[in-house]
Amino acid sequence: QGILERLDAGEIVIGDGGFVFALEKRGYVKAGPWTPEATVEHPEAVRQLHREFLRAGSNVLQTFTFYASEDKLENRGNYVAEKISCHKVNEAACDIAREVANEGDALVAGGVSQTPSYLSCKDKTEVKAAFQKQLEVFMKKNVDFLIAEYFEHVEEAVWAVEVLKESGKPVAATMCIGPEGDMHGVPPGQCAVQLVKAGASIVGVNCHFDPETSVETVRLMKEGLQAAKLKAHLMCQPLAFHTPDCGKQGFIDLPEFPFGLEPRIATRWEIQKYARKAYDLGIRFIGGCCGFEPYHIRAIAEELAPERGFLPEASEKHGSWGDNLSMHTKPWVRARARKEYWENLKPASGRPYCPCMSKPDGWGVTKGAKELMQQKEATTDQQLKELFQKKK
Amino acid sequence: QGILERLDAGEIVIGDGGFVFALEKRGYVKAGPWTPEATVEHPEAVRQLHREFLRAGSNVLQTFTFYASEDKLENRGNYVAEKISCHKVNEAACDIAREVANEGDALVAGGVSQTPSYLSCKDKTEVKAAFQKQLEVFMKKNVDFLIAEYFEHVEEAVWAVEVLKESGKPVAATMCIGPEGDMHGVPPGQCAVQLVKAGASIVGVNCHFDPETSVETVRLMKEGLQAAKLKAHLMCQPLAFHTPDCGKQGFIDLPEFPFGLEPRIATRWEIQKYARKAYDLGIRFIGGCCGFEPYHIRAIAEELAPERGFLPEASEKHGSWGDNLSMHTKPWVRARARKEYWENLKPASGRPYCPCMSKPDGWGVTKGAKELMQQKEATTDQQLKELFQKKK
Amino acid sequence: QGILERLDAGEIVIGDGGFVFALEKRGYVKAGPWTPEATVEHPEAVRQLHREFLRAGSNVLQTFTFYASEDKLENRGNYVAEKISCHKVNEAACDIAREVANEGDALVAGGVSQTPSYLSCKDKTEVKAAFQKQLEVFMKKNVDFLIAEYFEHVEEAVWAVEVLKESGKPVAATMCIGPEGDMHGVPPGQCAVQLVKAGASIVGVNCHFDPETSVETVRLMKEGLQAAKLKAHLMCQPLAFHTPDCGKQGFIDLPEFPFGLEPRIATRWEIQKYARKAYDLGIRFIGGCCGFEPYHIRAIAEELAPERGFLPEASEKHGSWGDNLSMHTKPWVRARARKEYWENLKPASGRPYCPCMSKPDGWGVTKGAKELMQQKEATTDQQLKELFQKKK
Amino acid sequence: QGILERLDAGEIVIGDGGFVFALEKRGYVKAGPWTPEATVEHPEAVRQLHREFLRAGSNVLQTFTFYASEDKLENRGNYVAEKISCHKVNEAACDIAREVANEGDALVAGGVSQTPSYLSCKDKTEVKAAFQKQLEVFMKKNVDFLIAEYFEHVEEAVWAVEVLKESGKPVAATMCIGPEGDMHGVPPGQCAVQLVKAGASIVGVNCHFDPETSVETVRLMKEGLQAAKLKAHLMCQPLAFHTPDCGKQGFIDLPEFPFGLEPRIATRWEIQKYARKAYDLGIRFIGGCCGFEPYHIRAIAEELAPERGFLPEASEKHGSWGDNLSMHTKPWVRARARKEYWENLKPASGRPYCPCMSKPDGWGVTKGAKELMQQKEATTDQQLKELFQKKK
Repeated sequence: QGILERLDAGEIVIGDGGFVFALEKRGYVKAGPWTPEATVEHPEAVRQLHREFLRAGSNVLQTFTFYASEDKLENRGNYVAEKISCHKVNEAACDIAREVANEGDALVAGGVSQTPSYLSCKDKTEVKAAFQKQLEVFMKKNVDFLIAEYFEHVEEAVWAVEVLKESGKPVAATMCIGPEGDMHGVPPGQCAVQLVKAGASIVGVNCHFDPETSVETVRLMKEGLQAAKLKAHLMCQPLAFHTPDCGKQGFIDLPEFPFGLEPRIATRWEIQKYARKAYDLGIRFIGGCCGFEPYHIRAIAEELAPERGFLPEASEKHGSWGDNLSMHTKPWVRARARKEYWENLKPASGRPYCPCMSKPDGWGVTKGAKELMQQKEATTDQQLKELFQKKK
Repeated sequence: QGILERLDAGEIVIGDGGFVFALEKRGYVKAGPWTPEATVEHPEAVRQLHREFLRAGSNVLQTFTFYASEDKLENRGNYVAEKISCHKVNEAACDIAREVANEGDALVAGGVSQTPSYLSCKDKTEVKAAFQKQLEVFMKKNVDFLIAEYFEHVEEAVWAVEVLKESGKPVAATMCIGPEGDMHGVPPGQCAVQLVKAGASIVGVNCHFDPETSVETVRLMKEGLQAAKLKAHLMCQPLAFHTPDCGKQGFIDLPEFPFGLEPRIATRWEIQKYARKAYDLGIRFIGGCCGFEPYHIRAIAEELAPERGFLPEASEKHGSWGDNLSMHTKPWVRARARKEYWENLKPASGRPYCPCMSKPDGWGVTKGAKELMQQKEATTDQQLKELFQKKK
Repeated sequence: QGILERLDAGEIVIGDGGFVFALEKRGYVKAGPWTPEATVEHPEAVRQLHREFLRAGSNVLQTFTFYASEDKLENRGNYVAEKISCHKVNEAACDIAREVANEGDALVAGGVSQTPSYLSCKDKTEVKAAFQKQLEVFMKKNVDFLIAEYFEHVEEAVWAVEVLKESGKPVAATMCIGPEGDMHGVPPGQCAVQLVKAGASIVGVNCHFDPETSVETVRLMKEGLQAAKLKAHLMCQPLAFHTPDCGKQGFIDLPEFPFGLEPRIATRWEIQKYARKAYDLGIRFIGGCCGFEPYHIRAIAEELAPERGFLPEASEKHGSWGDNLSMHTKPWVRARARKEYWENLKPASGRPYCPCMSKPDGWGVTKGAKELMQQKEATTDQQLKELFQKKK
Repeated sequence: QGILERLDAGEIVIGDGGFVFALEKRGYVKAGPWTPEATVEHPEAVRQLHREFLRAGSNVLQTFTFYASEDKLENRGNYVAEKISCHKVNEAACDIAREVANEGDALVAGGVSQTPSYLSCKDKTEVKAAFQKQLEVFMKKNVDFLIAEYFEHVEEAVWAVEVLKESGKPVAATMCIGPEGDMHGVPPGQCAVQLVKAGASIVGVNCHFDPETSVETVRLMKEGLQAAKLKAHLMCQPLAFHTPDCGKQGFIDLPEFPFGLEPRIATRWEIQKYARKAYDLGIRFIGGCCGFEPYHIRAIAEELAPERGFLPEASEKHGSWGDNLSMHTKPWVRARARKEYWENLKPASGRPYCPCMSKPDGWGVTKGAKELMQQKEATTDQQLKELFQKKK
């Protein structure tokens, strides 16, 4: 059954987690460029991560093609040990995802994301060509449906949806925005309306904000669609990091991004709360993005097991709400094998010399920064660092 | 070259990270029993984790045989989906470790850990028999050396070393203790002396405490050895969790154990500080335990790259001190591609409603609890929970 | 010179601090009723506090007549040891303030605040009569000007201004609101417009929110006045407590109110920052409310000493930015006698087991609570407690 | 009845709070020199504070003669507006304390504290002469008993006790030390023994550490006395600041000392817990030092009211456990008028950008610092600052 058949039938569809962050920690992705050449270089590592998500309950395996547009890969090319073609990266991603999907009951979704071409003000034709190129691989490899994800500007997201829509396959579209809307100031409700009008059957958000904020953003999207009398399925794939202190740019703006985010990682119980909230709002495609590890996806599947009627495979190694702790050596740990304990625990940070919140750089949201960003391809890193120092 | 040749030559030997915690998050190990039947059930997952540590810089791959003594596996047997023999688990662990070790320059270490037999007051012969059984597999599979690790009582650790020593292979021994010493009150210095006298060539600590505390415990061991005019190599494999608030039992006692520890996870930069401190104290076998993911091991290798003269393979995807961030889309993130930034950052917890420290249950260290623990095999879980509730 | 002459001439006028909180800690005021019968019972304590504020730099001494309307005093009458008439309380307050004002260069301001009559839905005539009664005393005692302060509803504040205005004396009016506006939802800008139209020459906020939030609220008032092309002097008398986590009701809603607010007390340096911000926005009547002790008022006077050309008397015991620490016994404390040290210090809470933010009760802002509050005079405390328990 | 009669009869004697900190905030004492010339300059302010403590429940009013030895006053003389003789300061202090003591049921205690002469290595004769000079005033003014308090070195404390003891009046002696002992490394138990042998009838600690730590130090003193088979009454007058993060030097070493300590101020409920703990240990002279305001002393009296059979006068304005909140306007605040609420509340810091603990300067406890301190009178402030900068 396809993605729309499942959603139309009222099923809960569980997404997967964040590949770039998970594989960065495993040693296969570079923070900075965040490109997915690992599909060619280390297919076994990508395959294993897919398998873990499948086992944890994912119904959708996204091809690891984040930032795999040709312009992005070339742009960051000098950092790739051995030059690997955009075509090869995307093909390998499709093959690996399909191989693992066949091991269980999962769909393969081909994914595109925002492009350097758009950010450096290339025109519509050129930007669309980048998506077209990836789409050709997805069609050849016959993915089950398509996702346009991680867009900061709804304009570019609409272009992506338009390209993907031509394929005839179902299209989902998510933006990496919060309640304040996209980088041009378009509010979430309007973003949703534009995406559905462009042809998306599923809309929502991914990345950049924590689960609580992301569900709130989807709520605004839902309201926008209702006001416009449009129908679409809702989708949410947030960070597994707490970001109560971030601005419009999301976690990219936090001083801890990307190498000091550990204290913000959500516990499995916090993810269960997210899953419940998302479900209650009517979201039926529930997954995660950066920071989501397999056990976070399992937490979604366990929270919604009563509604779905089954547990994921990986729950054989878990047991709802810490059940298996009843086998622990220490009696006082055994006594934690119960829902009330974990549901109510407020975890300590263990970092008494650190604050609870940080002040976002703020740079990303000022006028000066926006201008700077528009010119940035023409600016050397040295100049940028100097500018940054001066701003400080 | 064997482990002792390397250490005698003054080389830095990098250990690996924590398998039970990492594989629990990936969906292959149960928190509670913490047993390693995944070596038989899901060898590809175990193999992949070994590979990631190897790539991150590990020179020693420990067989995934933690808690793989027969008594432990049987004890928890009703939780194992399909009954798997102790023999099979240990053999598979050796095979996988060797396969991956051969892909690079690493040694295979066969490991034993504390047993339920000891905790339930079985006699020396019976406890030693459990170690003997595992040793037979290690000898058949010809591991490179042996590690007795995760002992709360030096008495049992000494028995383990005595058994392992008979093999003729080099023996390392680490205890899961802090500066206050073992559960019978033997201080770290004396523990070290007893272990060396029993035949260990390498001694130190693993698990239960954070890097800072663990280095301090090894310092006390070093002083004990010096006072006794004994020589041994030093080893440290701490948690990757901050535990400034825990008591004698270590992190087991923290209310967050084991499912709410996320905010305590060390950043890569904090691990670099640990590696430097350990090195400065004279520790030359430097690795990690629970919470250590591949990127933490890479952080050790990167910190000590000047001394060792080379970077690990996985650094091709990292770049020291965030180098690759210079390829990030956002200019203000590019400006973070420097040591000073990460070295000085105090990460926020992102959890303004949570405290910084927790009060350990304390239960584990009271007289009542000790008595309770001694009787525990005779006590049903229901009774324990009731006792716990009453105590609260 | 009168208050308006001073402000019209561009002078900075420094207000005083919070009497009910300061005298509660000294043992003369009851938290709960917060009534000022101490003017009769313990005049020496009230006099001493006035003196300390005068010495710290206050140019305005407010009569200690907070909640001294007849309905309020009677309402709480059973808690007053010995029945003391409203008239006596107000007269004594005027006498004490005038006595101390004459010891320096300060004006006496007669103050009225919100009434139980309004909250229990009495009509305009009855509410105005309460203000009229206090005004009579102020006129008899010939205070220098009048302040209507601590109003949650602009409607009642306007009534108060109308009454006070008839006296012919200058009238200042401050509301205890934040950026979200009054309890009926009137935004700050509109509140300011209504108050000025009613006859207030000075408008602003007092109490309920921290300095940062309060300055922001006054900014909104300023914008409202500018949009309406109205002119008035601006005034700010915030809490000396940090309240980043409170809702529309301000600090009353925080779980710590009123007996657990200590960790939130502002340092003198934080008050200096507030004084600077207030000044930069164009506020020229700068003081404090609950939590402000004499040293906080001194901090305002010291921060603005460059603009005013003089220091307050109490600075002889201070020295700007910790100057006198150069006389400390310990050399490392001597080294703190400098601006950079204190300006940049982020004080630790010393409370590792406590969170940084609290969740306001929330009760005050829900629809149910509002209804409850409207009926509250008809509700016994027992019923309220039960309701509260149920809500929890 | 004298102090010893009361204590011998098993009565609880309540001390007073911290004059230098309270009067610094009121504008009458300089932080840095901390000298008490206010007794002459502003007797009404000193008198009022005595009155507040009396009203709050103090049974002992200490003369405000802290640091009032001649050498200290002269040393800091250039900072005293008008040269005031040591003799006058001490006489005025006695007169004011006696005047207020007579208003209730309180004893007057003449107090001496550590001297610059000792710290700059003057000999025993010279140091004793300083105490002798103050004692003459105390005898002339006929105080009820004597306290030697705030000594970092037991040697100097013993000299003080020897001098005071000659008067024939009862002598109490407290040191400003923690569990690690005095600045020469003498442990608390031994300090207590030496003080009792020198003639003190009451021993304990004051200042420098928080209530919890101070009670622990007195516990060690008690054990020392028991081991030596000596008898003495126990006394405790700690800070009202939380100091879980400070070293041997106590709060002087904290970066926040003395102008950023606000977040550490104890709530009244925390002081009630302290009073109970102190009582349970057998301490019967229970008071406070720096940070203790009148409401903190009242909290001691209220906690121990069941044992003593009466409440202090100031409780008429309080009501145990927040009773009077039942008269608050807001229903949800009324619901807080109960013990369980306040007993269990963990107050938030309201400072999400600040850490929970600070790292003490550490300077005070290193060998270099000690040497530096011994030479300090010969060192100019400029040199000290330079040294400090270099150390940093």
